[in-house]
Parts: sequence; C-alpha cells; structure tokens
Amino acid sequence: MKYSIGIDIGGTGTKLGIVDEGGKVIKKHEFKTTDYNDFASYMHGLTTAIKTLQHSFNGHCIGIGIGAPNGNYYKGTIDYAPNLPFGLCAPIVETLRNAFGMKHIYLSNDANAAAVGEKIYGGGKNLDHFILITLGTGLGSGIIVDGKLLLGADGFAGELGHVCAVPNGRICGCGKRGCLEAYASATGIKRTFLEMLSKHNGNSIIANKTWDELDARVIEDAAKAGDIAAIETYKITGALLGRCLADFVHFSRPSTIFLFGGPVKAGELIFKPTRESLEQNLMPLFRGKVKVLPSELPFGDAAILGASAMVWSAVNAEG
Amino acid sequence: MKYSIGIDIGGTGTKLGIVDEGGKVIKKHEFKTTDYNDFASYMHGLTTAIKTLQHSFNGHCIGIGIGAPNGNYYKGTIDYAPNLPFGLCAPIVETLRNAFGMKHIYLSNDANAAAVGEKIYGGGKNLDHFILITLGTGLGSGIIVDGKLLLGADGFAGELGHVCAVPNGRICGCGKRGCLEAYASATGIKRTFLEMLSKHNGNSIIANKTWDELDARVIEDAAKAGDIAAIETYKITGALLGRCLADFVHFSRPSTIFLFGGPVKAGELIFKPTRESLEQNLMPLFRGKVKVLPSELPFGDAAILGASAMVWSAVNAEG
Repeated sequence: MKYSIGIDIGGTGTKLGIVDEGGKVIKKHEFKTTDYNDFASYMHGLTTAIKTLQHSFNGHCIGIGIGAPNGNYYKGTIDYAPNLPFGLCAPIVETLRNAFGMKHIYLSNDANAAAVGEKIYGGGKNLDHFILITLGTGLGSGIIVDGKLLLGADGFAGELGHVCAVPNGRICGCGKRGCLEAYASATGIKRTFLEMLSKHNGNSIIANKTWDELDARVIEDAAKAGDIAAIETYKITGALLGRCLADFVHFSRPSTIFLFGGPVKAGELIFKPTRESLEQNLMPLFRGKVKVLPSELPFGDAAILGASAMVWSAVNAEG
Repeated sequence: MKYSIGIDIGGTGTKLGIVDEGGKVIKKHEFKTTDYNDFASYMHGLTTAIKTLQHSFNGHCIGIGIGAPNGNYYKGTIDYAPNLPFGLCAPIVETLRNAFGMKHIYLSNDANAAAVGEKIYGGGKNLDHFILITLGTGLGSGIIVDGKLLLGADGFAGELGHVCAVPNGRICGCGKRGCLEAYASATGIKRTFLEMLSKHNGNSIIANKTWDELDARVIEDAAKAGDIAAIETYKITGALLGRCLADFVHFSRPSTIFLFGGPVKAGELIFKPTRESLEQNLMPLFRGKVKVLPSELPFGDAAILGASAMVWSAVNAEG
C-alpha cells in the first residue's frame, strides 16, 4: 500500500503520521520539539522518528510533507520561526532529501498545508477556488486558486490573519494594530469577551473567571446558557470575520470558505453572524453565491493530514 | 504579419484596434455604443467595424479580445451591465465566433484585461505575481497569480474597488458603504478634497471651483502649487490606498503592484504616501519587498491593448 508521511512541527511538539491516499492516519508518533536545542540535533531526532514509523508499517512511502511555522514552500526552509530553535534559515527539505533520497518532499506553513488537506481529503475535493481559515491562538489561512495552493512571489501568500480589520485597532502579536487575528481567533474571542464584560459592568455568569481560565469554549458554553456578554462576543466576532471574508471574496471569488479550529465548534453561534455579515458586505454581484462551511478535516489530525496532502497533490499533478 | 484585435466596450463608446505581438496599436477605429438600442443591432455594427478594420490591413488575425463591464470570461457573456443596452446575458463571444469562425475569442472586464496587457506588453512581462489597480471614475483591478489572470469560481475575481476601506464609510455606487473606490479613484479624490475644503473652512486656491469643475488633475495642480487642502487630499488618498494594498499583499503576495489611470499622473504626490502607508501596514515579513510602480501601458490605448493581450496570452499558453 502506498502512503505519505505528514509532519506537523510546532514550538512545543512535533507530530508525524503515516497517511493513506484516502486521508486515513494509519500510524502516529509524537515527540517534544523542546527536547532539542538546535536544528542539527532536532533533525537527528526527526529522521530517527521517521525511520521508526516507516519500519513499523509495511508499505511504499511516496513522499514526506511538512507543515511548520514560516515554512517556505519554494526554498524548502523554515525562516525566522520565533518559537523554533532553528535560526534564520533551516534547510529542512534538503536535509530530509539527503537522509531519505526521496523526490517528493514538501514544506509549507500549517494553514497552507491544511488547505491542501481540505482539497485532497476534505470538503474541497471538487472545488477549484476556496479559502480555508484556521481559528486558533491566531488566524491562519490557505487559499486555493485554480485547484492549487496560492503561494505568491516568495511562498508566503495567504497571511489573512494580518489584514486590517479595524484601523488603529487592537495590538496584534505581529506588531501592527487592528489585525483580523486580534479579533477572529480563540484569543480574539477572549479579548472581545473582556470588552463585553467591561461594557456590561461585570454582568456575566463567567465574570468569576480569570484571563487564564477563559477560553473560546468557556465563552461558548456561557453564550449557550444565555449569557448576554458571551452572546454579544460571538456576534461581534462573526460580524468582523464576515466583513473580512467579504473582502477575500472580492479578491479571489472562492465558491466556499471553510472555517477550522476550536471556535468553529460553537456552530451557529459563530456561523450565523459570520454568514450574515458576509452577505451584507459583499457587492451585489456576489451575494448568495459563497458558502461558509466548517472544515471537513478531523480536528486532531488536521495538521498531519494537511502536511501529507501536499505529497498527494504533487503526485496527482504529475498525472 | 500576425495580429490580434482588441475591443474596448464602454457605455459611451466602443474602440477597437489591430495590435501586433509587441503591443503596438497599428490601426484603430471608434464608434458610439449609444447609437445602438439592443444587443443584436450593436453586434451588427461591431462585426461590420471589425471587418472594415481587417480589410484595411494586410496580415493574419489570430484572435479577438474584448474588455467590457461585467464581461464574464468563462461564459463569454456580458451579464447585467448597467450602462449597456444588452439585457441580462449577452453572448458576445459566441456571436463573434459564429461571425468570424475564430477559435481565440476572449472576454473579460476592462481592468482584468489591462492586467493581462501589463503581463504581455508592459511592466509585468517577467513577473508571475502582480496586481494592477486602475484608478478612474471607480477603482478596477486585475490580479495575476502564477503568471495567469485570477478569475475565481465565476470569472469575476478581482473586485478590489469594493473591499471595505472604511467601516461604515462613504456611500459607494455599488450600494455598500466604505468601499475603497469611494476613496481611491478620481471621484474619491474629489470627495476627499471637499472634506478637506470643509475642514479648512474654504481656505484653498481652488475653492472657487464647482463640483463639476473639480477633478483629480485640478486638485493635483493645486497641490503642486502648495495648496494645503489639495496636498492633504493626496496624503489621505495614498494613506488609505496603501493600507488596502497591504491587505492585498497579505492575500496573494505579489512582487509588484502597478497603478494605472489619471490620478497616477500626479507622480510622487500619490506614490509617496501610498508606499509609506503600504510599508506601515505590512506585517514585518513582507516589508521592503513589494514595489508600487506606475503601469507601463500607454494611457490612451490601454483598454485596446489589454483586450488584445488576452489573445496572445492564450496563444502563448498553447506553446
């Protein structure tokens, strides 16, 4: 049986898995990224982990896909990733190519990889134009145009978390102000809830929670229990997200926008205001034509799947 | 000699020309769109004009390109164009194909066509990722991704004039509020100047001009003569345009953004604040990497050139 290997590199942990052509994760392995202090020792650990995984399964490996922060598709390097001890430019694709002698080794950031996962295994199978938005600590995105990942001049296209949602708005982790991810993300929802708690003078059933105790899930539960501050939080989040999604439609005219991540589990609480705001902010030509749907990638394995999908995508393109 | 025919259909006039592979307009013809009351009679006039142009020149016509408002590339139809008496869905490509028996006949809107013109004849020749912005009565755009025009799910991608520049801002012709074209266009510049005239209590050397007498050129001349209200107008226009251009960079990561149209003639008056604002609003990863340049298409013939370029682009893609 043919399989590809998907690797998800995060600041805390590294996950890897054997994935079949249908998008089933057959075997998985996980280790701590933080156990390594530099790129060379990390790569030693990673290649050992890959070999162990391969030896545990009887099949033909057609390639390796890697999702990593600041992963550069064109160069195959991880550049300036602030949470990884890899330095300015870590040549991960070349290193793996030397270790395994494989042709099909691909790298991108995790949200780009997830969009390819949606195209190969998920709801985007039959779509040539769609956008995947991942709502987590930040907001990531991958854009599919003509059936392919939009990479741009340097491989870093699709940074939709950093479009300006609110001129001179909230401070974002990137140093700018008013970025979309400061509003539409798990963290953004928490920040909006605090504004609502302030507006309603502390009147909320979760007013007793500290900053660390609050998360999108706690606020979702409060909203479902009728808490006004929590309900307003989701309304504001959806309204802002929908307005920015409309801008994205004016750009690439996708047929569908998929949302992925923890806050998406809130269901209609987030989808309803998002869809309403999208429609209101679209020019008439586009109204009623663009779907906003939950991603069909399974929550836990999405990063491994997305990484592995880049291999199938490239192999399919060869015909 | 091989040539293609470029046709620019506007609500007032229709222009057509014979264009060689290097982007030289060899012969031109023009007639009034308003002389015709319906699509059938217009097409009779257009085919006659095309034949007359062809007979006047000794060469081999490889195809016809058409730029028209609401021109649908995929369907070859002009849909719901408010200023053309063509009805809901005018099958212009099919009609020309029947009349001329040619394979290469292409339709798009004028800004999309202009972007292809920039790619084939202009500053985008060697670029795979760029955006062309046309500043006229409105703001049009064409987006090149991987060397090709971005069309999206229905052929209408690239409506950047209608992204939200100012939440709840100025009323736009499309019915929405705060659209970029309500600020960054010849009309938008005029609207901003009136705000500045109001702010400065009528203190301007062109305060004696009526709405109809004001245009981007008059305001440009005033700014160059040191008029504060006019100078501020261009600063505000560039600041807003630059912020939106930054959002576009976060989307498709072009290497260059070309600006085209009357307001571009103001030179540094518009380019300086636009570039400064672009840099300020980019996430650090993209700073210092994206050029903002004037289009290299000649002003008068850009629409004919763009339309004709779609033919060369398709023929080149066939190899």
